[in-house]
Amino acid sequence: MQLNRYRVRTSRISHIFISHLHGDHFFGLIGLLNTLSLNGRDTPLVIYGPPGLDTILTVQFQVSQTVLNYPIRFVGLEAEQPEIIFEDQKLTITTFPVQHRIACWGFLFKEQPKPRRINKETMPKALTVEEIIALKHGQDISNDDGSVRYANETFTLPPRKSRSYAFCADTRYFEELAEWVQGVDLLYHETTFMDNEEELAEQRYHSTTVQAATIAQKARVSTLLIGHFSSRYRDLTPLLDEAKTVFDNTLLAIEGHDITIEE
Amino acid sequence: MQLNRYRVRTSRISHIFISHLHGDHFFGLIGLLNTLSLNGRDTPLVIYGPPGLDTILTVQFQVSQTVLNYPIRFVGLEAEQPEIIFEDQKLTITTFPVQHRIACWGFLFKEQPKPRRINKETMPKALTVEEIIALKHGQDISNDDGSVRYANETFTLPPRKSRSYAFCADTRYFEELAEWVQGVDLLYHETTFMDNEEELAEQRYHSTTVQAATIAQKARVSTLLIGHFSSRYRDLTPLLDEAKTVFDNTLLAIEGHDITIEE
Repeated sequence: MQLNRYRVRTSRISHIFISHLHGDHFFGLIGLLNTLSLNGRDTPLVIYGPPGLDTILTVQFQVSQTVLNYPIRFVGLEAEQPEIIFEDQKLTITTFPVQHRIACWGFLFKEQPKPRRINKETMPKALTVEEIIALKHGQDISNDDGSVRYANETFTLPPRKSRSYAFCADTRYFEELAEWVQGVDLLYHETTFMDNEEELAEQRYHSTTVQAATIAQKARVSTLLIGHFSSRYRDLTPLLDEAKTVFDNTLLAIEGHDITIEE
Repeated sequence: MQLNRYRVRTSRISHIFISHLHGDHFFGLIGLLNTLSLNGRDTPLVIYGPPGLDTILTVQFQVSQTVLNYPIRFVGLEAEQPEIIFEDQKLTITTFPVQHRIACWGFLFKEQPKPRRINKETMPKALTVEEIIALKHGQDISNDDGSVRYANETFTLPPRKSRSYAFCADTRYFEELAEWVQGVDLLYHETTFMDNEEELAEQRYHSTTVQAATIAQKARVSTLLIGHFSSRYRDLTPLLDEAKTVFDNTLLAIEGHDITIEE
């Protein structure tokens, strides 16, 4: 319902990542999987999640005698240290364990290094495909006698930035996390509580505003996105303000808002 | 979310009835059970549903290490004929099997016969509690010499009507159903399809408008409530009109609407 409300095209979803098996993080999954099938999806879907999630899904498909129109591949999480779980030409995805009441993992999405870009202003039109590829890989184009014909520096621009996003799920504060998400462009970190509830946060395996902002600061991220606020807070401004005292470039995660990471 | 939207007080829910294990009929249950617990419920909840539902719930509680704040009692449905599954001083609840793609049950909720009512206009104020109870049970009040002091007929009014509601879940047309819901005040019957899709309805174990209205007519119910419309129908008026050609007192089941059964 929410994907539909915010006009997210489900055909663009090929992988789903479930951090842990608390209800507010996965109860909607089975309904989504069924809806995708009813809506005619036929392309494969990969689901990453804690061991046990596959059993939950399988039992429900069995009792309802449901056969989905598309294949699902389930990948169980078990990493005890940061570990790459996906890699292709464009992206690496790393999972890392966080500290919650039950087994819980975060995810780091990182674009691969990008090629240099052809400088359209200086580029001669006569380049061959091979020459373009060579230039994009940082090589010069040579004449037959070996002398430099097109110097890479003149005809290309630096690569665009490889963007990165870390989703830290539900976790209490622990310092190591800052190393694992070092330098990301956008860091999602939960802030269930205000700073005055630090003790409660520790007990419940959640974090405060100040703790989330401290991770952002230590990790030298560009932007901190805070969310998962306790329902006791009607007005979220104090949470934002408190996080900003430690890390200024902080945003509230509000359902339906878009956040763009610039290249 | 919908209970909250329509201001249904969840504290008034003591029993939940699940007809069958297709996703659109039970995927929301696990979330509701958790929300009730988070919101502080501590009173017992009874869930009636097909065998297998308890396993689904248990698995999810286990993996999320959830312990609810209130006790749940699960009653598995297995009736092959109408069968009383609940009875107290006010109500009997009967379940009956319907004909769907997977095991599926309907439910008939029927108020017990009600006592006669004291006629406030004719009643002397000096009645004792025992006398009131006797009058409500249809007895006369006698003098010491055995002669009639207060004739029941004079001092009481007939009982209010015992109301009844039948929910027939998802089913294809079968005649026996009309006997099982004979004379109810309100009959909910699915009408997934228009009359011209009768063959498709049969194949998919669903009903048409005309079939639902035929059951209502044969069962001599007071009001027919039709719902579970195929998503192909944007405008529901033709479905309503078609049902009315067979059974005039038909209503559309629209989420959020209240329907009152008068006593």
